[in-house]
Amino acid sequence: MSLHDPIVLSVDGHGGDQEETVTVPACLRALEADSNLSIRLTGQPERLQAALGQQSPADHLCERLEIIAASTVIPMDAKPVAVLRRGQDSSMWRAFEEVAEGRAQACVSGGATSAMMALGVKLLGLLPGIKRPALMAHVPSAHGYVALLDLGANLNVDASQLVQFAVMGSVAFDGARDGSENDQNPAIGLLNVGREDSKGHVVVKAAHQMLQGLPLNYIGFVEGDDLFSGHVDVAVCDGFAGNLLLKSGEGLVRMLFSELSRSLKSSLSSRLGAVLSRQAFTELVARFDPAAHNGAPLLGLNRVAVKSHGGANCREMTVAIMEASREARRRIPEKIGSLILEHRLEAEE
Amino acid sequence: MSLHDPIVLSVDGHGGDQEETVTVPACLRALEADSNLSIRLTGQPERLQAALGQQSPADHLCERLEIIAASTVIPMDAKPVAVLRRGQDSSMWRAFEEVAEGRAQACVSGGATSAMMALGVKLLGLLPGIKRPALMAHVPSAHGYVALLDLGANLNVDASQLVQFAVMGSVAFDGARDGSENDQNPAIGLLNVGREDSKGHVVVKAAHQMLQGLPLNYIGFVEGDDLFSGHVDVAVCDGFAGNLLLKSGEGLVRMLFSELSRSLKSSLSSRLGAVLSRQAFTELVARFDPAAHNGAPLLGLNRVAVKSHGGANCREMTVAIMEASREARRRIPEKIGSLILEHRLEAEE
Repeated sequence: MSLHDPIVLSVDGHGGDQEETVTVPACLRALEADSNLSIRLTGQPERLQAALGQQSPADHLCERLEIIAASTVIPMDAKPVAVLRRGQDSSMWRAFEEVAEGRAQACVSGGATSAMMALGVKLLGLLPGIKRPALMAHVPSAHGYVALLDLGANLNVDASQLVQFAVMGSVAFDGARDGSENDQNPAIGLLNVGREDSKGHVVVKAAHQMLQGLPLNYIGFVEGDDLFSGHVDVAVCDGFAGNLLLKSGEGLVRMLFSELSRSLKSSLSSRLGAVLSRQAFTELVARFDPAAHNGAPLLGLNRVAVKSHGGANCREMTVAIMEASREARRRIPEKIGSLILEHRLEAEE
Repeated sequence: MSLHDPIVLSVDGHGGDQEETVTVPACLRALEADSNLSIRLTGQPERLQAALGQQSPADHLCERLEIIAASTVIPMDAKPVAVLRRGQDSSMWRAFEEVAEGRAQACVSGGATSAMMALGVKLLGLLPGIKRPALMAHVPSAHGYVALLDLGANLNVDASQLVQFAVMGSVAFDGARDGSENDQNPAIGLLNVGREDSKGHVVVKAAHQMLQGLPLNYIGFVEGDDLFSGHVDVAVCDGFAGNLLLKSGEGLVRMLFSELSRSLKSSLSSRLGAVLSRQAFTELVARFDPAAHNGAPLLGLNRVAVKSHGGANCREMTVAIMEASREARRRIPEKIGSLILEHRLEAEE
C-alpha cells in the first residue's frame, strides 16, 4: 500500500473529553486534506448530525463521511472491566468494531487509554507473541523527532517486553515527520541511568544484552538528556518512566514558554524585542508545542489504533486522524508482526 | 545552629573530573562569601598549592583554608568495591574522613556518585532505619524550586523507601532558595502515571497509603507535568525514573535555549529583537540553567555529604559548597533521623 492509497478510518465521535464539536470538524479537515480518505464516525447520530450541520460541509466531503450509530459514551474514568462488560454500544467500541470487522483499516479515539487498551486487545487482538500493547509518541528533539515508548501502558516490564518495544519503535518510527523520509533503520537507544554496560537494574541489563544480538540499529544505553540531543531516533523504557518523561517534558515546555513571554513583557525594550522576534518565537513554540504532535499509536495490535489526547482541539485531533491513516498505509502492524515472528521475540510468560 | 554559625567543611580537591583548578578557586569564593566558613581541602598538596598560588588569595582567606594531604584520586569509573578496598589514601576518602572524625561538619565532592555513596555509608554511616542514601536536587519550577528525589541512587525501591524519601525531602526542601524562607511543611507529591488512587503499580500504591497516615503535607499522586507547575515542593519517585526525569529536563532546557538562539539569528528583525530582549533572556537562562543549581545532598546519612556534578565550573562548585554548609547548619541529618525514629519508618528488610 502506498502512502496515497484509498483508506477508510473509523473515528470515535465522542471519545472521552472530546466532544463532537471537535471530532466532526477535525474529520472534515482530514477529509479535505486527503482525498483518498473516508471516515466512519461513530456516536450518537443526532449529536453528530447537529455538529455537522454547524460546519455546513461541502458535498464531496459528506460523501466520504458516514455516521455509525452508537448510543453511549465511555467516561474517562471507566474501569476496563466495565468497558468490556457494558461498553458494547459505546462510540469507542463501535470505532474498534469497524476495524475488527474489516469496514475500516484503523481507528482513532480521544478516550481513556485504559479503555482503548482493553478494546484493542479484545476486538483487534494482539500480534502473536506480544503480551500487551505499548503506547508510543513522537517527541520533538534537536534534529526532528524521537519516538518514545512505552508511555504508561506497561508499568512493570520484563526484558523481553523492552526488546519488543525496541522492535515496535524501530518499525513505527516515522522519519518523514521532519521531511527526511528516513524511516530506514532508525537509531534505537535503551533509556538508563548511565551509558556503561554495568549501569542499571537487572531488567534493562538483560534487555541490553538481547538487543545487541538483533538486526536493529541498536546504539546501546542512552540517558535522559539523549532524548533531546538528536543522537537517537527511538528511545525505549518502561511505561512508568516513559509516562513521567513525556508529561514532565510537556510541562517544562509549557512553563518555559510562559516564563519567556512573561519576561518579555517586563520592560519596554524587551516588549519591543518580542514584537521584532515574534516570528522566530511562533515557529519555535509551534515546533515544540506538545499538543501539535498528537496521535499516539497503540503498538502490538493486529490493526492500527491511535490515541488522541483528551481535550485535543480540532487541529490536534486532525493530526491524530492523519497519523492513523499514515500508519495503516505504512502497514505498521504487519511489519511488527513479521519481525517478532522472524526473530522469535515472544514475551516471557 | 543558626544559618550564620561558624562551620567547617571538607572539600574533595580532585573529585572525579573536577580538577583543583576548579575546586581551589571555588573554595576561595565560598570563603569570601561566608566569613564564618572554614574549609579543609583534601588532595595532593603540591597540586593544590600550585592552584592556590595562581589565585594569589588574600591572607584572611588562606587562614580559613587548610590542605589535608591525600596521595591518590578516585577515577570516575571506579567500582564501589575497589573504592572501599583501595581508596583509603584518596582525596575523596579523606574528605569523608574529616567529617567522620569530627574535624568537619559536611563534605563536598565532584566525584562519582557510586563512590560517594559507598564512602558515605562506610565512613558517615546510615541513619537508623535507613536502607540506602537517596540523592536529591532542587529543580527550577514555575514558582521557585521543586526538590526531586531519588535521582539514581536507588533503582529498585519498595514502598517504605519511597516513604522515607518523602520524609527526607520534606526536611531537606529549602524554600529559602527562592527567598520565601518557607521551609515549613512543604507540599509533597508522589510521582505516578495518574492522580487517581487506582493508578500506578503496587509499590507506589502502597507508599501512597502509608503517606496518607503521616503528619506530612502529603498532597497525593502527582504527574510528570506537576513537577514544573509549582503545585508541589517535593516530588518523590524511584531513582530510575528520577534520574531520567532530571537529565531529560536538563537536556530539554539546553535544547530549547539553543534552538531559541538559533531562531533569533535567523532574520534581521529577530536579531534586532534579540538584542532588545537580551536581558529578559539572560535572566531566564540563568534561572533555568540546570548547572546553576548544583549541589545534590546524599540524604539518609548521619552527616551532610553533597555531590557536585562532574565537570562543574568554579561558580557551580561554589554553589555546591554553599549548599553543604547550609544543610549542615540546618541540621538536616538530625531532623531526618528524629522523624524516621518518631514515626517508626524503618525500611522493610
